[in-house]
Amino acid sequence: MHIAILTFDAFNELDSFIALGLLNRIKTPGWRVTLCCPTATVTSMNGVTVHAQSTLAEASGADAVLFGSGMKTRDIANDPGVMGQLRLDPSRQLVGAQCSGTLMLANLGLLNAVPACTDLTTRPWVQEAGVKVLNQPFYADGNVATAGGCLSSQYLAVWVIARLVGLDAARAAIDYVAPVGEKEEYVERALANITPYLPSVS
Amino acid sequence: MHIAILTFDAFNELDSFIALGLLNRIKTPGWRVTLCCPTATVTSMNGVTVHAQSTLAEASGADAVLFGSGMKTRDIANDPGVMGQLRLDPSRQLVGAQCSGTLMLANLGLLNAVPACTDLTTRPWVQEAGVKVLNQPFYADGNVATAGGCLSSQYLAVWVIARLVGLDAARAAIDYVAPVGEKEEYVERALANITPYLPSVS
Repeated sequence: MHIAILTFDAFNELDSFIALGLLNRIKTPGWRVTLCCPTATVTSMNGVTVHAQSTLAEASGADAVLFGSGMKTRDIANDPGVMGQLRLDPSRQLVGAQCSGTLMLANLGLLNAVPACTDLTTRPWVQEAGVKVLNQPFYADGNVATAGGCLSSQYLAVWVIARLVGLDAARAAIDYVAPVGEKEEYVERALANITPYLPSVS
Repeated sequence: MHIAILTFDAFNELDSFIALGLLNRIKTPGWRVTLCCPTATVTSMNGVTVHAQSTLAEASGADAVLFGSGMKTRDIANDPGVMGQLRLDPSRQLVGAQCSGTLMLANLGLLNAVPACTDLTTRPWVQEAGVKVLNQPFYADGNVATAGGCLSSQYLAVWVIARLVGLDAARAAIDYVAPVGEKEEYVERALANITPYLPSVS
């Protein structure tokens, strides 16, 4: 299984790395989580330069693809040189987006009539793209999910684990990273956010 | 103001980057948050290579220093070549640690009789170093704070902001990054975790 976390210049560290940290709690052979970038290195919105672990071409073949967010998302979402490299297909891949990443999903035509979550800043742009924005942290319709607010990247990651591995693995991952003394609260809230959208439950 | 986030090879991405993202919500002139590493680049526990933004020597002069955690913390905590470069002094600096970072604080003699938070894996090692471990996400005594469980790095960051800028700025930072629809819950919990340890309150 390969999960690619799309990470562009001026990216938001919280979005990409919370997902990456949580997804890497899975230790089964063949499970691969990568920071996926259009160039060999990208620099975050706060000046941290990181090295890519996979290419955009690899994302097209991944089992799950998550769009992080960032300060240049509007420009990148309209850049055919970048977006044209992505060949995503929710019929064979899980596709998720976080905050301004939702705008990329919309521009790629992957949302269509599906409502979506995003952050408060991106909200008007996503609405402008014709997508209904929900006032909640997480929403999924089949294989397409969106989340709003940096820390809700935990829900996107837990949803991917629940879909690709199972609910017990999702529970164990969030339990591990949750604050000491608040683990039950974190686990319950995360599962409450994602379970309505899991095929076996809904 | 300079806040240095100590980040070593095999570091945990959640600890360093949640703190970095939250602390960078402050936009006042002269506010500088850096990934502080012993070498020009370090590679995380999940294989992400990042570039340092400051050196260990700079940490000694920083206004606040946060120890992240990682998979090699025990070795690094016992490496005089690395630890010997740090000249930290809680009488003039805020010093915080996250999960296994707490072990570094203990080894540097910065905890003494102060109880501390850490993660469940590091717990026995911290106890072995003679420190009482608390079953809670955050604790501070004066200028020294510790947190346990990756996602409690949010509390460490919010405490630094509350101490160096003020409680309103701390509230605004956590509010911004919290999941859409759960902002009130996140803000209240974060403030409840740190306010008992703020000088003006306690």
